[in-house]
Amino acid sequence: MGTLAGHLLPASFFMLYSLYHSVLLSLALLWKQKDLKPPLPPREKRGHNRWHWTIVEGVLKVALTFTGILGELFYPPGVNRTRLVDWEAPQRPFLFKESWQHITMYSFFMLSGVVDIVSQRRLARQNVRLERAAEALAFFMVVLLMATHIENRGSVEVRVHQLFMLPTFLVALVLSIEVWVPSQPTLWVLKTWMGLVLSSWLLQLCVVLYTPPSGQPWRGDSTEDMAFLTTFFCWHLGLMALLLAAVYGLCSLWLRHCSSGVGSLGPRYKMCPTESSNEELQRLQEEEELQNGGV
Amino acid sequence: MGTLAGHLLPASFFMLYSLYHSVLLSLALLWKQKDLKPPLPPREKRGHNRWHWTIVEGVLKVALTFTGILGELFYPPGVNRTRLVDWEAPQRPFLFKESWQHITMYSFFMLSGVVDIVSQRRLARQNVRLERAAEALAFFMVVLLMATHIENRGSVEVRVHQLFMLPTFLVALVLSIEVWVPSQPTLWVLKTWMGLVLSSWLLQLCVVLYTPPSGQPWRGDSTEDMAFLTTFFCWHLGLMALLLAAVYGLCSLWLRHCSSGVGSLGPRYKMCPTESSNEELQRLQEEEELQNGGV
Amino acid sequence: MGTLAGHLLPASFFMLYSLYHSVLLSLALLWKQKDLKPPLPPREKRGHNRWHWTIVEGVLKVALTFTGILGELFYPPGVNRTRLVDWEAPQRPFLFKESWQHITMYSFFMLSGVVDIVSQRRLARQNVRLERAAEALAFFMVVLLMATHIENRGSVEVRVHQLFMLPTFLVALVLSIEVWVPSQPTLWVLKTWMGLVLSSWLLQLCVVLYTPPSGQPWRGDSTEDMAFLTTFFCWHLGLMALLLAAVYGLCSLWLRHCSSGVGSLGPRYKMCPTESSNEELQRLQEEEELQNGGV
Amino acid sequence: MGTLAGHLLPASFFMLYSLYHSVLLSLALLWKQKDLKPPLPPREKRGHNRWHWTIVEGVLKVALTFTGILGELFYPPGVNRTRLVDWEAPQRPFLFKESWQHITMYSFFMLSGVVDIVSQRRLARQNVRLERAAEALAFFMVVLLMATHIENRGSVEVRVHQLFMLPTFLVALVLSIEVWVPSQPTLWVLKTWMGLVLSSWLLQLCVVLYTPPSGQPWRGDSTEDMAFLTTFFCWHLGLMALLLAAVYGLCSLWLRHCSSGVGSLGPRYKMCPTESSNEELQRLQEEEELQNGGV
Repeated sequence: MGTLAGHLLPASFFMLYSLYHSVLLSLALLWKQKDLKPPLPPREKRGHNRWHWTIVEGVLKVALTFTGILGELFYPPGVNRTRLVDWEAPQRPFLFKESWQHITMYSFFMLSGVVDIVSQRRLARQNVRLERAAEALAFFMVVLLMATHIENRGSVEVRVHQLFMLPTFLVALVLSIEVWVPSQPTLWVLKTWMGLVLSSWLLQLCVVLYTPPSGQPWRGDSTEDMAFLTTFFCWHLGLMALLLAAVYGLCSLWLRHCSSGVGSLGPRYKMCPTESSNEELQRLQEEEELQNGGV
Repeated sequence: MGTLAGHLLPASFFMLYSLYHSVLLSLALLWKQKDLKPPLPPREKRGHNRWHWTIVEGVLKVALTFTGILGELFYPPGVNRTRLVDWEAPQRPFLFKESWQHITMYSFFMLSGVVDIVSQRRLARQNVRLERAAEALAFFMVVLLMATHIENRGSVEVRVHQLFMLPTFLVALVLSIEVWVPSQPTLWVLKTWMGLVLSSWLLQLCVVLYTPPSGQPWRGDSTEDMAFLTTFFCWHLGLMALLLAAVYGLCSLWLRHCSSGVGSLGPRYKMCPTESSNEELQRLQEEEELQNGGV
Repeated sequence: MGTLAGHLLPASFFMLYSLYHSVLLSLALLWKQKDLKPPLPPREKRGHNRWHWTIVEGVLKVALTFTGILGELFYPPGVNRTRLVDWEAPQRPFLFKESWQHITMYSFFMLSGVVDIVSQRRLARQNVRLERAAEALAFFMVVLLMATHIENRGSVEVRVHQLFMLPTFLVALVLSIEVWVPSQPTLWVLKTWMGLVLSSWLLQLCVVLYTPPSGQPWRGDSTEDMAFLTTFFCWHLGLMALLLAAVYGLCSLWLRHCSSGVGSLGPRYKMCPTESSNEELQRLQEEEELQNGGV
Repeated sequence: MGTLAGHLLPASFFMLYSLYHSVLLSLALLWKQKDLKPPLPPREKRGHNRWHWTIVEGVLKVALTFTGILGELFYPPGVNRTRLVDWEAPQRPFLFKESWQHITMYSFFMLSGVVDIVSQRRLARQNVRLERAAEALAFFMVVLLMATHIENRGSVEVRVHQLFMLPTFLVALVLSIEVWVPSQPTLWVLKTWMGLVLSSWLLQLCVVLYTPPSGQPWRGDSTEDMAFLTTFFCWHLGLMALLLAAVYGLCSLWLRHCSSGVGSLGPRYKMCPTESSNEELQRLQEEEELQNGGV
């Protein structure tokens, strides 16, 4: 993964996932939903028709991370990185440090996918907390491995990875908080925004490390170059906030257009959990009325 | 902004804004308001007469930061700092590091102003949480950029900026907490006090870096000089607490004078949100009775 | 304790204790208990028959730590490490630094055992908060002493002990939170999982420091060796999560087998605190229904 | 204060104050009080007879810190340290760094005393939150000044002051939390215990820095000496927990003796706030029943 492709592919997937999440978030805020994704009904009441949709996210996670792991081990073709230790060398050194770090990261995202599938298909009742905990664990692992990843590197690499760790850690933190407090629209906004920031920063990272537009490599001994890294990161924070606001605005316009038209979204609107306890719903609605504009 | 004027102007604006906030705070505590600023009624019930007042703060924020950005780019006259990269030099170095850092800071405060205006004029219902979040973001950006700003500087500059980051971070933290818990008088006090401290410390910073009263520059290699920086910072903390108490005392005297006189403040007193749920109001009043003296 | 045995014995005890706790946790989750261990009834209502069971944990803690302290002082036979200072040497140096650090750690675990016994046998009503606080103190002491322990050591020892401090600190933190919020199944899961991780990492530590399988010592100057330490730690986190899930699964199967059979566990099931306030119980049940699968 | 007396006197006052607080705490736990000190009734209902008692603590704080400030400025007799800057020297250096640091610390404790007096005598209703905030500020200032105090010192002095900062910071933190959550018996226990630890560690500090019992100064370059500092700190933590338990036990015995005797404490027992809302009281009693043994 220490290549352009190795950074670009995960960055693109994160970006797509974050964009998908920001649409989900906008709809949840506009429909005043209690949950970011509507929870599955208890298993016995579940029909067979919703099977494909609910499970697709978990299966995608598993498939993509599995591809990633295979890529780490056997790409480019002919390479085999499955050995941990070179037993023939006299010092018996460890091999393929970076590959194994990336495989470890992928494994925890795969675990999160497996937990999603198990929670949504195998349990009598979907365990949302467990899904959040597994996701949080995956992001915490990324932070922990990044801290090791940047040892003995140049100062540019250290700085871009440190700035990458900031939104990653915040995502992990918000996911951990959601284990205890799952229905907080403000936390969804923070999580989705930080997801966008970490994806776009990962894309920026490709530009900084592999394809600087000026044709000159970023210089770690230059105060200017180092200072602009942080400045650019701030710009990403601002731009992604604007992007999130734009997605929200587009969703809002689209919904208004649809509802004034055919009214085809009516049935879906009724899917929101009106059968839950009145008291909690009311509190939530008040909260979300505050929320229902801007971001 | 790496000049006396560049530090003095923002410091003065912050100081005026903090003083205005401490008057607002004193009145809110004395009138036992539920919010620091009385919230706008929903849009449909809003008349046209309150237009100018509510929007003035947001417009001021935008105007001042826009002036600041223009100053960074084109002041002194004849200078043009709009280029990011010097494309003609062989190494294509970045240019005007500091200006772009300051422009970034100004932009986030401008964003906060824009969010204020949108939230108060465009939304069906004012979104106070969103306004707080945008303010918090601006202050967090100041902290993040300061951390880069002080790289490769002398130890005096590092220390004064580190001490400046402390109240700034606390303001950002309190604003973030207010996104979730907006009606906490104790948090208003902490926020206003920290605002005063960061403004007065920014003024002190001008004295330390540009116009030391002894005529001798502060020396980074002198233990005495460095130790007194922290000691002075503690004095600022104490003095600003006294200033806040004084503002509260003056407001209290002024109110007592007015109410014993013409009673002209009656109508404004009735603006406080008595139509909210009784239970929460009662809890709040008890809290504020504890609060209604001293600071 | 700076020997293989000195690390292996505590590691084994921690592992056994954590496994015992994970069984306890699984049963508590499956039976939807309010507490991890069912609390003792008030003293006057307590019979004499439950004496042996409840006290056995506290007595074991005291006995094991007492053995550990004796071992530190007098093992191998003939050694006497009870002196703190060598009064005869001209510089009067301190002696047996490590032994006294280990004795201090053991003492706090012994204190925790004594508090358990006093709380369960001597007080009119069991003080669960106090027991949790004493346990938390013991783990915080381990973290504090570890921080000193790793001064002036090689970088491999520093790293493995730092990684060991991470789950230890989390256990201490969760125990501290449990002083205020004792009935949180999610916290039990976190605590038990982190207990498993710290035990298995302590076992790994023996392998790294004393018996590397490759026959080559871990090298602190090798980036590969250092990077794999963190990677292995991540694997321990993942594997222990799977172990916890396996224990939960086995307990679940065993319970289903039993209940479909003789139904001998019926009486124990009724021991759960149904006499507590309905409202809290209901909230808890809802929580645990979410919890009752997977981990 | 850089002398034995300068450390010993504050240490003794802190120790006496902490012991007084641990008696107060024991009585509050035994009598199941809602507040550590019973709050004053509103001013109009207050008689004149309670004047002397309530104000004595604030006056003592002001008097002691004022004496301390005078000592810093004019002790030993003939010395005058009121000048900040030596205006006659060409470099205009700052003078008496340490004295001004100590004066700053004393001033904030004096401020806390003034706030106590104002809150208890001048306000219509005692403002307990404000008193806690002023105390927290004083302890935070100690931590902040300590961080500067230990710059350019030997490693022994750095370590003992760092360990001193730990309980001081915890006391400040607990006091800050009490601004929001004042009636938490568990926080009182933590605060009192940490107060005892910081006092006894300040006494230990005198022994380490000025009068080592072995006659040999502590050596910063010796791993043994440095390691034992942390070990001793852990012992202080344990011993002060035992001391607190002993004070609690003695108070419990004394109360049992008194109540079985003359019953002279009856009137005081009735002072506890039974007129507060039933619901909250009940919750609190349940909490304190858990608490009412051991520590």
